[in-house]
Amino acid sequence: MNIYEQINGFFNPRSIAVIGASATPGKIGYAVLKNLLEFQEAGGRVYPINPARDEILGLKCYKSILDVPGTVDMAVIVVRSQMVPQIIEQCGEKGVKNIVIISGGFKELGGEFRDLELEALKTARRYGIRIIGPNCIGVFDPRTKVDTFFQPKERMLRPKPGNVAFLTQSGTYGIILLEWATMDELGISKFVSYGNKMDVDEADLLMYLKDEPHTDVVGIYLEGLGDGRKFFRAAKEFTKRKPLVVLRGGWTEAARKAALSHTGFLGGKGRVYEAAFKQAGIIRAWTLEELYDMVKALARYGYARGPRVAMVSNGAGPMVQAVDAVSTQGLELAKLEDKTKDELRRSLSPFTVVENPVDLTGSATPEDYRIAIESLLNDPNVDMLFVFFVFQNAPMNEGIIKVMSEANKKAREQGKVILAGAAGGPYTISINKELEKEGIPTYPIPERLVAAAKALYLWGKRREGR
Amino acid sequence: MNIYEQINGFFNPRSIAVIGASATPGKIGYAVLKNLLEFQEAGGRVYPINPARDEILGLKCYKSILDVPGTVDMAVIVVRSQMVPQIIEQCGEKGVKNIVIISGGFKELGGEFRDLELEALKTARRYGIRIIGPNCIGVFDPRTKVDTFFQPKERMLRPKPGNVAFLTQSGTYGIILLEWATMDELGISKFVSYGNKMDVDEADLLMYLKDEPHTDVVGIYLEGLGDGRKFFRAAKEFTKRKPLVVLRGGWTEAARKAALSHTGFLGGKGRVYEAAFKQAGIIRAWTLEELYDMVKALARYGYARGPRVAMVSNGAGPMVQAVDAVSTQGLELAKLEDKTKDELRRSLSPFTVVENPVDLTGSATPEDYRIAIESLLNDPNVDMLFVFFVFQNAPMNEGIIKVMSEANKKAREQGKVILAGAAGGPYTISINKELEKEGIPTYPIPERLVAAAKALYLWGKRREGR
Repeated sequence: MNIYEQINGFFNPRSIAVIGASATPGKIGYAVLKNLLEFQEAGGRVYPINPARDEILGLKCYKSILDVPGTVDMAVIVVRSQMVPQIIEQCGEKGVKNIVIISGGFKELGGEFRDLELEALKTARRYGIRIIGPNCIGVFDPRTKVDTFFQPKERMLRPKPGNVAFLTQSGTYGIILLEWATMDELGISKFVSYGNKMDVDEADLLMYLKDEPHTDVVGIYLEGLGDGRKFFRAAKEFTKRKPLVVLRGGWTEAARKAALSHTGFLGGKGRVYEAAFKQAGIIRAWTLEELYDMVKALARYGYARGPRVAMVSNGAGPMVQAVDAVSTQGLELAKLEDKTKDELRRSLSPFTVVENPVDLTGSATPEDYRIAIESLLNDPNVDMLFVFFVFQNAPMNEGIIKVMSEANKKAREQGKVILAGAAGGPYTISINKELEKEGIPTYPIPERLVAAAKALYLWGKRREGR
Repeated sequence: MNIYEQINGFFNPRSIAVIGASATPGKIGYAVLKNLLEFQEAGGRVYPINPARDEILGLKCYKSILDVPGTVDMAVIVVRSQMVPQIIEQCGEKGVKNIVIISGGFKELGGEFRDLELEALKTARRYGIRIIGPNCIGVFDPRTKVDTFFQPKERMLRPKPGNVAFLTQSGTYGIILLEWATMDELGISKFVSYGNKMDVDEADLLMYLKDEPHTDVVGIYLEGLGDGRKFFRAAKEFTKRKPLVVLRGGWTEAARKAALSHTGFLGGKGRVYEAAFKQAGIIRAWTLEELYDMVKALARYGYARGPRVAMVSNGAGPMVQAVDAVSTQGLELAKLEDKTKDELRRSLSPFTVVENPVDLTGSATPEDYRIAIESLLNDPNVDMLFVFFVFQNAPMNEGIIKVMSEANKKAREQGKVILAGAAGGPYTISINKELEKEGIPTYPIPERLVAAAKALYLWGKRREGR
């Protein structure tokens, strides 16, 4: 099997055994099994393995994976680390090809626990098994319903199928990214939390995802690189085709130590990796929000053809700060053509500030936005349009959703980009969600919007090979 | 009247006239009047002024403010800028002492519009009237129900009474701050959006708020300073008593120009103000989220007695990044006493990583958190405790709310601080909200939590006069 087929096995098994399945709600072995019921309903087979039970959650339970009739493609292991090497041996005998180890208690604890990992790996290699984990939440695929999480569905939202893959060393960050994506109607292609990455690492996953047809963009949260050269080589290959955003935790000396006891990896030293990231065509994020914000823009719009930005709003405060951010992030304020300004002056109220940014003032209606957006998109000096909103203002109304939907279609025809900015309570959140449904990325504060725009611009440059 | 009484008039009028009241939903003059109905229900009197109407929203309407029987303490003006000087003259004749001008169309447009502002101001001075605005959303006080906003209540949440005052040159940012506060159960003492600040400015408001008994902390969004010396003098006085957090927009050359056409002020040049901010004891925020995050921590906990931080979580990823942030923000990782570590080793699972940060791993229950938090709070080397959560994990449950409520009480008795970190979908948001109700500030990502902690530490130093 080539690397594509090996990794693809994690997302497309026909049968999954849960080794360490539990009948007790609140236990990890119960939660994992319960989340896989949807995989079973979708036509897959799920086998709980627990020597003390005959049945769990309506599924027949087996004492050992060797007792399961027929083939088992994948195993999810939630037993104590000390038992894992022996379990892997059994999986090998059974012909399992993909294993996800959720359990912790390996390399991250140091000492003899480190040896457990080496022993498990040796056995896996002998049988040609690929392993994700240990010390992770594993794999999620919304299309095939593979879901190895121990987070119950009533506590953690699952996103719909889409074009974004997230890879993360931290399960926590993975959960947050997937819930944010769900709330924004952003779809996921593949998700892997790989924890200690004793076998499958980011490089393997990138080599798979570069050919995986549903994935258009990948976001990674990384604490430490095992084989740095392998990673950067894979990243460089990957970014020849698709954009890659990376957030690296543990870049300070103090945090490197914390990372060591988290997933058993030393974080990179200071800014050592800086040049390597750049050379590999990686777009760098500095917080989890920024990773998410950038990936969302790339998933929705692909890239920006240039750095020149126009802005419009019915509340100018955020635009003032967006201008600050544009000029510090390597983007540019577009110089509007006289024709554009004349059009705006002719069509809008005399209180409108017709400059870039365009201030429609608090009296603006959806129709005012429509007029302004159309003129700004038509201006050949504009590559990206930032539309900020105070949806809460009395003269606004839900008509803005249709205006933005049409603006979005027009922008795409013209090869341009629209990013929206708005924040507040439930009303604003609900309108933002409508815009996200239309495929327009929305951001709460201008700095986050501008960072996302920068990612679009950087990827635009990279893909042109500039 | 002294400055305290003058400014206090904006929050405690017995009667308010809305000049330019409208009967048309969607109009600013309608929205302002409608929002004041609650003030009327609370015992205040509200007078719509509109020459073309006899009644609006069940209230008797007057042709001019001069026709209102009895006194009018305050006027809210929403008519076109050209009419404003004449309206102010009438308000003066009527004996009005406080005016909020919502309308734009003044200094921010330049030219003859600038003169309108000067003329209005001259008249106001003659009558001893104080003005907030123009080009703003005005004043909000949840205790007295004064609410001059043109944002309907079904679109914009209003916070409960509390101890935070926000002052903002941008109405948009004001709306966002108030909605965020409402969603976090954070109470407000006074709110002022002052736009072009043709009369009342930040310095006046700070001199009022330093003596205002409900206000414990002030957050300001600032675009430009008119009289910089006056502001820094007032800020210095203010921070002798209470903490002040300032976000300044328009600090780049490009944004200074945008600010000019927003509220008619030039933003400060580059880093010129840096030293003055520091000398005045101002805590500096760099984004709207940071302003909010810092103010929330200060409102809930007051200050931190030192920079030494301990951390605990059931998902270590965010702690790795928090350690990065701690070491770059001037805080310190606490060195735990051996006694603390021994206690933790004795009481917790052998898979727990007993170092600072403490990693309880994904199996942690609320009881594990209780044990860890108690030990860490008792450690004399710990000033602040950061508690990160994956509430989504199967072994967690709502028992954590009680654990945190008791931890919070204990921390306060010990003069220590707890900040919580968790992010995700509706389930996590609902638990965060419970923690906020208990008075524990919560943050979605570690960088934001650490910035808030820094504000607590900086204010702790300042108040001790260190």
